[in-house]
Amino acid sequence: MHIHIENDPAGPQALQLSETLLWQRLQANPALQGKFTLSENHDPQHLAEFLLVADIVWAGRKFPLYQHAADATRLRWVQVISAGVESWLEKWPDAVQLTNASGVHGEKGAEFILMSALMFNYGIPGFLQDQANQQWRPVFGGCARGKKVLLLGLGGIGAAAAALLTRQGYEVVGVTRSGQSTATVARCISIEEVDAELADTDVLVSTLPLTPETDGLFSRERLAKLPSRAGVIIVGRARVFDYDALSERLNAGTLAGAVLDVFYEEPLPQGDALWQVPRLIMTPHCSLDDHGAYLEGCLTLFLQNLERYLAGEPLINRVSTQKGY
Amino acid sequence: MHIHIENDPAGPQALQLSETLLWQRLQANPALQGKFTLSENHDPQHLAEFLLVADIVWAGRKFPLYQHAADATRLRWVQVISAGVESWLEKWPDAVQLTNASGVHGEKGAEFILMSALMFNYGIPGFLQDQANQQWRPVFGGCARGKKVLLLGLGGIGAAAAALLTRQGYEVVGVTRSGQSTATVARCISIEEVDAELADTDVLVSTLPLTPETDGLFSRERLAKLPSRAGVIIVGRARVFDYDALSERLNAGTLAGAVLDVFYEEPLPQGDALWQVPRLIMTPHCSLDDHGAYLEGCLTLFLQNLERYLAGEPLINRVSTQKGY
Repeated sequence: MHIHIENDPAGPQALQLSETLLWQRLQANPALQGKFTLSENHDPQHLAEFLLVADIVWAGRKFPLYQHAADATRLRWVQVISAGVESWLEKWPDAVQLTNASGVHGEKGAEFILMSALMFNYGIPGFLQDQANQQWRPVFGGCARGKKVLLLGLGGIGAAAAALLTRQGYEVVGVTRSGQSTATVARCISIEEVDAELADTDVLVSTLPLTPETDGLFSRERLAKLPSRAGVIIVGRARVFDYDALSERLNAGTLAGAVLDVFYEEPLPQGDALWQVPRLIMTPHCSLDDHGAYLEGCLTLFLQNLERYLAGEPLINRVSTQKGY
Repeated sequence: MHIHIENDPAGPQALQLSETLLWQRLQANPALQGKFTLSENHDPQHLAEFLLVADIVWAGRKFPLYQHAADATRLRWVQVISAGVESWLEKWPDAVQLTNASGVHGEKGAEFILMSALMFNYGIPGFLQDQANQQWRPVFGGCARGKKVLLLGLGGIGAAAAALLTRQGYEVVGVTRSGQSTATVARCISIEEVDAELADTDVLVSTLPLTPETDGLFSRERLAKLPSRAGVIIVGRARVFDYDALSERLNAGTLAGAVLDVFYEEPLPQGDALWQVPRLIMTPHCSLDDHGAYLEGCLTLFLQNLERYLAGEPLINRVSTQKGY
């Protein structure tokens, strides 16, 4: 059986998987040694040749698989190293399983969300504005304990964040498609029930993927239901939210703040109005990714999945190409 | 026995203790009911009259007790509602016990310190600078786990912070006068040993009070020993640190950042150079005080101490007027 590693020559070195490393890890595992041949590619122009022989692809970069349908006749499984997979789904072949890297980001993502929630609690976005204006205006607020977090999405990052926020004393209301979850939350509701929860929300967190259902979900009308004390944290996909409407509320001073790690266009273009929105704190799409630990996390997941694949068991993190996550 | 309540007419309403509230709380406690007469003052000009009859003073404002030595002949105990008491100590009479409010700030102070430490970990001071310059420069760092916090002072706030930081995975090295502590730390050292710890510190936190020993403790030379990846959090007293030297390192870009809640002069004057120092995040001396819970916390402590006082037991939070805390 053949595993092809398709690396991204434009990506960070820390995210390139070498054939040598994978070979060593396969050899070290009695269930996997001797079962696979390997190839590794860094030149997108040569992908087609490798797809002729690949049963399994480790995808370190995105490519439109449907353009290679005629070549990739042996292909049965693609493991991607990102969590969001919306760009993969166009004309996805039924015969190929798609698995993502959801959960590998858990610890760092959860910690970033906790930090961001506490920043609202301690008034940091407002104090930064006061500092720029040389204004001394103390605010003596309370602790996180008992404040309400509405947490959209309880996948790998969302579930880890729910546990950490709960431990800090936040009341976490989780939001999932089904309204069900095994994550550590005070309550779990479905996306349809979200409107009734917004008026007393202190912190709104989105870890949602981009799907036809989530695209534009937080419209101007929905954002308008948040109270002025609320802060918004977005680490999932940007297009779930109306950033213009969010900016307007921040410009009007009717939100406590926002911490955004994701944007419609990345890098955010110079001159974009978002750069200067008050009470908006931006991180350049790096707050979930721990490059020191990420490749190893993805590789561990892949090796577990290879064992399952050989045993005919369901793969971890299999994406529903209908749901889109 | 007479308890006099000296409120601060210039202070926040939430910190004024009323005679009525204290009376209700005394009446509700079988050990305390019927034992005390009470008075309450909001006009500093009349303090002397009340001190003639007071055995115990609840001090909601600072006043130089030595100026009233001739009047306050019955006085045996002053409970102040701040943690720092350096301004009380001048010519302090041996016959009077001084107790402070250390520990009442624990939960909020610890949470603020955790947030600030995470802000360095996630590069927030640098990203704020990049945002102002419209620069997109991702940094893919790791989690808090394993990073080293050097935590100066393990009193009420320090001990609560040590527990919270340890829970988040930080390696906390506590620093106390004696080198001993019962707080949750990986190690505890004495102030004399601090120099050897600075070179591999990720986060330096000060909760130190101002005493003759701590005044200027973190001089230019000592601050120079911190690595450029380090962040500095100061929530104790400002004069423990050389703020000019700290500003120079921040201006030179050789520190990850600083979060300062305290300043040499407060409010910080308009035009002070500190307002514009890059990678410096200021909060206006409000990050430990939870006005919604603070008076109640102080009152609970005071009632416990009243029981001990009547029973002839040692008071909680008695300040050593020699050590200054």
